[in-house]
Amino acid sequence: MLSLPDFTDPSLFSLALTHRSYVNEHPEIPEHNERLEFLGDAILAFLVGELLYQRYREMNEAELTRLRANLVEEAQLSKFAVELGLGELLRLGKGAIKDNGRSNPALLCDAFEAMIGAYYLDSGLEAVRAYVHALFPPVADRFVSTPARGISFVDPKNRLQQWALERFARNPEYVIVGESGPDHAKEFTAQVRINNTLYGTGTGKRKQDATKAAAEDALRRLDL
Amino acid sequence: MLSLPDFTDPSLFSLALTHRSYVNEHPEIPEHNERLEFLGDAILAFLVGELLYQRYREMNEAELTRLRANLVEEAQLSKFAVELGLGELLRLGKGAIKDNGRSNPALLCDAFEAMIGAYYLDSGLEAVRAYVHALFPPVADRFVSTPARGISFVDPKNRLQQWALERFARNPEYVIVGESGPDHAKEFTAQVRINNTLYGTGTGKRKQDATKAAAEDALRRLDL
Repeated sequence: MLSLPDFTDPSLFSLALTHRSYVNEHPEIPEHNERLEFLGDAILAFLVGELLYQRYREMNEAELTRLRANLVEEAQLSKFAVELGLGELLRLGKGAIKDNGRSNPALLCDAFEAMIGAYYLDSGLEAVRAYVHALFPPVADRFVSTPARGISFVDPKNRLQQWALERFARNPEYVIVGESGPDHAKEFTAQVRINNTLYGTGTGKRKQDATKAAAEDALRRLDL
Repeated sequence: MLSLPDFTDPSLFSLALTHRSYVNEHPEIPEHNERLEFLGDAILAFLVGELLYQRYREMNEAELTRLRANLVEEAQLSKFAVELGLGELLRLGKGAIKDNGRSNPALLCDAFEAMIGAYYLDSGLEAVRAYVHALFPPVADRFVSTPARGISFVDPKNRLQQWALERFARNPEYVIVGESGPDHAKEFTAQVRINNTLYGTGTGKRKQDATKAAAEDALRRLDL
């Protein structure tokens, strides 16, 4: 299950959970969580982007951008906040509590981002990266393997990756196994393996074309 | 003047400058710069966000967000690309060259982002952070001190900061110099200093209110 990060300085965690409405009612509290939210949003954009860049080597920029947008949007981040129990920990003003602030997706999302920002100030980038790498990959894989959720990958390498992730929780691996012909008319041969098993072979004038052809071959053999 | 970062692996720099149109004409080139652009965009969002978070302590989330958007938008990043001479270095297809690709802001912006992504892979986060910290602060200060450019800061602390940056290239410093009264009716006294000179004094029920009043006092004395 999801668990909260360990803070060295609990006051930073507390600040991350302090909503503007609470500060308004408590003049002795100097600050609310909105600046931390800005910082956390920036860190998430980076770490989730980096994660996707490394994890889905066949995705193009448009696909990576779409997938990241799905992962860091309010709907997803507020879900994490609920699973982490942030709603009960929020410091809210009386009016905000009455208005169901503890289950308001916008407040929950903000608190999650602020917590990430606070954890960065508290424990540094490596700690936040480890936390993000524990939290996001299962959700990302689910998005990738469920095209119905609004992300669809028409590229054969992406379709094969979807299938491989769904079936084996593994990425396909592409290997160039042959190269022939003179410089102006090269032909490359590629194989695609999943879970150490050969699924398809293809050729092309560029390495990229050969791996794509190998993916198409695999999809044909799999009847996908 | 702006200078290009030093790459350990020149092929990464070269990949960052390789446009899709060049790959289309050169089948032996396996990849263009678009995935690096995705990565660089994510890194810039983080490092520029972090920079602003640290540099402008009086700005609220909305102001930080607006300022960051101005700094990482195409208009600004393509300007950096021009100053760095990236246009001449771009690897473009013949058609893209004819269509003035070397001075196309979208291509230049993409190449700048891709270069940041490549430099991260090449030299790590600290190197990119140093580069970003050399490049962005003067531009950010100019945005902050030129409200006409579409960013206006109505908060007195921000207006005072604008003036201080313009005049001294320094941030105002706020110090709480007094605290009196019982818990339910505290009164705080704040001073604001710029360049070690006292500019204003203010009081309030919260530290935040006291510093704001000090900024207002300074603005009045300065006739701003």
